[in-house]
Amino acid sequence: MTERFTPTPEDKFSFGLWTVGWQGRDPFGDATRPALDPAESVQRLADLGAYGVTFHDDDLIPFGASDTERETHVKRFRQALDATGLVVPMATTNLFTHPVFKDGAFTANDRDIRRYALRKTLRNIDLAVELGAHTYVAWGGREGAESGAAKDVRVALDRMKEAFDLLGQYVTEQGYDLRFAIEPKPNEPRGDILLPTVGHALAFIERLERPELFGVNPETGHEQMAGLNFTHGIAQALWAGKLFHIDLNGQSGLKYDQDLRFGSGNLRDAFWLVDLLESSDYAGPRHFDFKPPRTEDMDGVWASAAGNMRNYLILKERSAAFRADPEVREALRAARLDDLARPTAEDGLAALLADRTAFEDFDADAAGARGMAFEHLDQLAMDHLLGAR
Amino acid sequence: MTERFTPTPEDKFSFGLWTVGWQGRDPFGDATRPALDPAESVQRLADLGAYGVTFHDDDLIPFGASDTERETHVKRFRQALDATGLVVPMATTNLFTHPVFKDGAFTANDRDIRRYALRKTLRNIDLAVELGAHTYVAWGGREGAESGAAKDVRVALDRMKEAFDLLGQYVTEQGYDLRFAIEPKPNEPRGDILLPTVGHALAFIERLERPELFGVNPETGHEQMAGLNFTHGIAQALWAGKLFHIDLNGQSGLKYDQDLRFGSGNLRDAFWLVDLLESSDYAGPRHFDFKPPRTEDMDGVWASAAGNMRNYLILKERSAAFRADPEVREALRAARLDDLARPTAEDGLAALLADRTAFEDFDADAAGARGMAFEHLDQLAMDHLLGAR
Amino acid sequence: MTERFTPTPEDKFSFGLWTVGWQGRDPFGDATRPALDPAESVQRLADLGAYGVTFHDDDLIPFGASDTERETHVKRFRQALDATGLVVPMATTNLFTHPVFKDGAFTANDRDIRRYALRKTLRNIDLAVELGAHTYVAWGGREGAESGAAKDVRVALDRMKEAFDLLGQYVTEQGYDLRFAIEPKPNEPRGDILLPTVGHALAFIERLERPELFGVNPETGHEQMAGLNFTHGIAQALWAGKLFHIDLNGQSGLKYDQDLRFGSGNLRDAFWLVDLLESSDYAGPRHFDFKPPRTEDMDGVWASAAGNMRNYLILKERSAAFRADPEVREALRAARLDDLARPTAEDGLAALLADRTAFEDFDADAAGARGMAFEHLDQLAMDHLLGAR
Amino acid sequence: MTERFTPTPEDKFSFGLWTVGWQGRDPFGDATRPALDPAESVQRLADLGAYGVTFHDDDLIPFGASDTERETHVKRFRQALDATGLVVPMATTNLFTHPVFKDGAFTANDRDIRRYALRKTLRNIDLAVELGAHTYVAWGGREGAESGAAKDVRVALDRMKEAFDLLGQYVTEQGYDLRFAIEPKPNEPRGDILLPTVGHALAFIERLERPELFGVNPETGHEQMAGLNFTHGIAQALWAGKLFHIDLNGQSGLKYDQDLRFGSGNLRDAFWLVDLLESSDYAGPRHFDFKPPRTEDMDGVWASAAGNMRNYLILKERSAAFRADPEVREALRAARLDDLARPTAEDGLAALLADRTAFEDFDADAAGARGMAFEHLDQLAMDHLLGAR
Repeated sequence: MTERFTPTPEDKFSFGLWTVGWQGRDPFGDATRPALDPAESVQRLADLGAYGVTFHDDDLIPFGASDTERETHVKRFRQALDATGLVVPMATTNLFTHPVFKDGAFTANDRDIRRYALRKTLRNIDLAVELGAHTYVAWGGREGAESGAAKDVRVALDRMKEAFDLLGQYVTEQGYDLRFAIEPKPNEPRGDILLPTVGHALAFIERLERPELFGVNPETGHEQMAGLNFTHGIAQALWAGKLFHIDLNGQSGLKYDQDLRFGSGNLRDAFWLVDLLESSDYAGPRHFDFKPPRTEDMDGVWASAAGNMRNYLILKERSAAFRADPEVREALRAARLDDLARPTAEDGLAALLADRTAFEDFDADAAGARGMAFEHLDQLAMDHLLGAR
Repeated sequence: MTERFTPTPEDKFSFGLWTVGWQGRDPFGDATRPALDPAESVQRLADLGAYGVTFHDDDLIPFGASDTERETHVKRFRQALDATGLVVPMATTNLFTHPVFKDGAFTANDRDIRRYALRKTLRNIDLAVELGAHTYVAWGGREGAESGAAKDVRVALDRMKEAFDLLGQYVTEQGYDLRFAIEPKPNEPRGDILLPTVGHALAFIERLERPELFGVNPETGHEQMAGLNFTHGIAQALWAGKLFHIDLNGQSGLKYDQDLRFGSGNLRDAFWLVDLLESSDYAGPRHFDFKPPRTEDMDGVWASAAGNMRNYLILKERSAAFRADPEVREALRAARLDDLARPTAEDGLAALLADRTAFEDFDADAAGARGMAFEHLDQLAMDHLLGAR
Repeated sequence: MTERFTPTPEDKFSFGLWTVGWQGRDPFGDATRPALDPAESVQRLADLGAYGVTFHDDDLIPFGASDTERETHVKRFRQALDATGLVVPMATTNLFTHPVFKDGAFTANDRDIRRYALRKTLRNIDLAVELGAHTYVAWGGREGAESGAAKDVRVALDRMKEAFDLLGQYVTEQGYDLRFAIEPKPNEPRGDILLPTVGHALAFIERLERPELFGVNPETGHEQMAGLNFTHGIAQALWAGKLFHIDLNGQSGLKYDQDLRFGSGNLRDAFWLVDLLESSDYAGPRHFDFKPPRTEDMDGVWASAAGNMRNYLILKERSAAFRADPEVREALRAARLDDLARPTAEDGLAALLADRTAFEDFDADAAGARGMAFEHLDQLAMDHLLGAR
Repeated sequence: MTERFTPTPEDKFSFGLWTVGWQGRDPFGDATRPALDPAESVQRLADLGAYGVTFHDDDLIPFGASDTERETHVKRFRQALDATGLVVPMATTNLFTHPVFKDGAFTANDRDIRRYALRKTLRNIDLAVELGAHTYVAWGGREGAESGAAKDVRVALDRMKEAFDLLGQYVTEQGYDLRFAIEPKPNEPRGDILLPTVGHALAFIERLERPELFGVNPETGHEQMAGLNFTHGIAQALWAGKLFHIDLNGQSGLKYDQDLRFGSGNLRDAFWLVDLLESSDYAGPRHFDFKPPRTEDMDGVWASAAGNMRNYLILKERSAAFRADPEVREALRAARLDDLARPTAEDGLAALLADRTAFEDFDADAAGARGMAFEHLDQLAMDHLLGAR
């Protein structure tokens, strides 16, 4: 393998403990791999060139552990961080594994469960901040329904807003330097999940009391499970100033949530995604939220983890070459990307209305006959992606 | 057929001229039906019990018609409205049929095409207001791309915002009582369309200069083309105060845009949609944006049009019976819908943090063992839907 | 609830032990319900009006049980059958839960695993026959891959054929009155599963040594996970004389395998499916392969189980009324279903070639202008389905 | 661009006249390009390095043309073939554009339309043979339905079988060296199409009178419109000895039929497809059934056409390098692909039953703990695909 695709902490790659630690339990099968000690994960990820590690509370401290056990787990983890230099850029809450969350957490029909979910979250926010995290992810995987009367969605959104407003109040009052990133998903494990796409989450945020504290954490596969163009979704999040974090992985179309390693599934979209991210002002981690297939043993787990980073770096190199290629620049001009960047009516509404060339004297047929030259441009992108130029 | 499912104008059913007037041209086949005179459509729709009719500029006045021809077409249309009492609650612009829009309208790479698109829209807004419309729909069906470099999405969203800000400025300056309803769609006719879902459109609106003038016009089939729960999307739009209009039809899963008559496709979701709409403060038209299958002759067209309204009325009756049934009310309580309606922390954050029953003394296992009783509730809904109680 | 929708054994409804016994473990959550004693399931299903019960070997006898334990489990089960009169029309093998099957069973890359899978199956076939089953289902849920080089599909099909040929040889040599029903599924738990649809399974069967012993066991949700029309698939299986068994449930579109109760999801297709089954010569069980949502406690489990049968019976009544309605018969004639039933060229090829009315003198435009009257017919079906006539 | 990706006739690339000739009419828009003279298409395709050209009858000879006009068109086409050396490996019938086919052709409810469709096909078969074709494609795009009662699928399959049996009889009686390739598609332009996937078509063929004359013509995008793995489908067709022809293009997931140029959409699957085809005994044309996006002018059309071939050649080179790489060979062994190629029970059933190591003494837990090493193998494939080794 080529040196130039070897990751370093400067690349800002991070992984969840639950990714390499996934034991392979699926709806039809038992675990195929042993549990993994978080400290070992930290060490191995550091060896592979990662920069950060993230966690759900229950990844680090088993559900229901005593305060003493909790301290022991946190201490061991912190030692591993110190030993390796890995940072914790993000943390999150497990509000889905225990049966108590079977009907949701912030929007569970049962009020006492909602209160419990908030307290569980608040407690872990303290830990997240203590460990240095600046982003707190909220994936509401159980906030949803399988049948129509089971959830009044308008009321559930009231509860969701109430929960996030309380969380916003808490970090503000505590003076924490922590922002929230809501992670959308259309379905699984619920039949339909609330805030199913990047768009729905962005819209929801605007109704919160402290919208400035909230952004999104889009995941490749989640948007693709709705057949949506992931890169377009990220672009809208960037446009809105709301890309606070990102979960990278792979998904092969509309099916169960696959969490393949980055580059798997829709490779061409992965290229455009890297091309977009690297051209943007997004400075956060490139976080991989993947699951090494349960066919793999631990060697396969680490091979899979390394593959995520390698693929990102290859695509980053290809994107840079694409953008630097003079023939590409010419093709972009031929496709009038520069004209798209010009305002449509910088002269104002009145001037537009008065401009006869804009309507009365406009030759629509001639304009409609112009070719856009997109196929040539796209083939150049293909050539660069494939390293065939 | 039963009298009680016969529509009247009080039901506020409306149809686009382009629906009953669709000639059946599809990607693989020529038209199977003759062109339909708008005046005849108005008459027939009135006979069937409709309340309103809507149009794209080019449905009423052929593209490129002279001002004199334009006047004649408008006059004939107005006479038909006067003769029947049908109203025009909504109008919209055709920014997709002519080749000039092949790369989009408000976000076409070519600036002169963007300017032309705006002028075409502004001109038709005048006509819409003149004919009494209070809602102006914007479906950006060509705003999108088939390949990754062909459109810089962030820049395209700038252009989209610019366009809508200009339109908002125009109606404000003209003093028009007109609001805009953006209609999302994930794909077709473009590979990926910008603002692909209700969520994306709601989020976009918040970045406009006059967000209060903009809402959404969700279409049943469009959300379902992304595998999303249409009723959930409508609920979020209502929650955001942004359901300005609605397009009802049917779609059988993830495939090309079918525009089947309302009730076709996902019948259970149609029930929940009617149940939601009728319980909401949405007071606008129930607008059918369907296409009578091209297998039908004109008799089939009118049968299909009538079916939309009939199905809505049947579902409305079933929803009312469902909500009035004492056993349903009991089942809703058993499923704790009333508890969802209670605030989670009306006592505030400090009280929540101090409440040991919310966390320290909370018995998660016991709470997790409670059944939600959703299946019984859903079967009651099924019984009502099927008229089997 | 109405008496007339109460099931009896004559309705031939059967359930898998694994359906009501599902404990609610999903990819993101732990079990929400206790294990269920098979004997209790038999009793409760009998109380609800079921006719049969089915099982995987491991549902009845825990994986790895000793021969003595095995005997005890079988004996208890048989006593429950005797006490209730329930029959065992079908049995199947669990070739997916244990990690040993993580890369498949009959097509695992490891030969020793393939041999083990065959032996496990052969052993359970003996038990199936002993308990009176005449159908043996084979769902190859783990026969597949997540990546392209991991499985040579042509070679894997050789191994699949080898396995089924051996099973066919075995039941023939043993003189068992047992036929096999292959159950297709497109994906989950593997990224792509071999024999993904009814069609692929039907085609595969034709290459076996004893094709007459093999048919299909289509499952509602599995075909719908490929966006396919389930009723059309069943019709092709019937047409091929290969519908040996059927798994009924519900699925809401392209997502993870939901196994909702029958009638949920695509209700209109459920109507057409019942309409087809009841008009066919299929005389086997109406088998429900569903999962009561994990939100439910045991009361909800039994409510959900009952709902499957109730919905089938409602749809059966509606289908009968639809077919008996004189207006429907007239509408079927108007849509020329009778003409479809006439051979196209009963007079032979030569006569067709010589018939000038068939081509030279055929007025294609006039024929193309005929309406098919499908919308009127479909609205009649909707009215019957909804009990609105 | 590199010399080595320049196509020659030896590569056996062919194109339909309707591909480069597509004028860009879609469900929402008018044609954006002028009609293209078939003779010019032949010339341009030859210039680009193609080997063959294919056609629907109506591509060459407008629907309803007189016999004299027909002769003129055929003569001009033949001259172009002679001038360029291009061959006609395949031809097909247009049974979908004219309104007469709105309810299907071989399975139209109207018997006279079925007879007309057969005669239209028979007539074009003569021309196909005359022009040297050895494969005749049958795409039944209109054979289907949008509603449940409109088509009795079992009866329709009887009619479909009748039609293909007549065609088989005809070519046999005429002594034509011509085989049929049925092209499956799940939907569009009908809501559901009969024989929706490769599997369904393969199964159907086995019930024909002359199955040896019939195979399949799978199209990339059609299988992907059902979310199926195209390469797996092709592998099953090859396994069955039924891959008679292939249509290559690109599709971005579950949506309308996109017909993008080959390599677009699922690039990784395109790699595996080429890898499979080139390792198989398939010796037929690599036929591109694509549509240059309607954003393109004629320059873009030819750029797009060339891109199909270029991408195929790049992928072919990469596949060859992958298979030749010693590290890949080692990785294939580590993943036990060689073990999959060994029969499971070459020693027969009795020996398998007697082999205690196969069951009684088999250590399932140990076998289940073995890693499959698929991720390492897949990353090697990714490296080769991307030219990063």
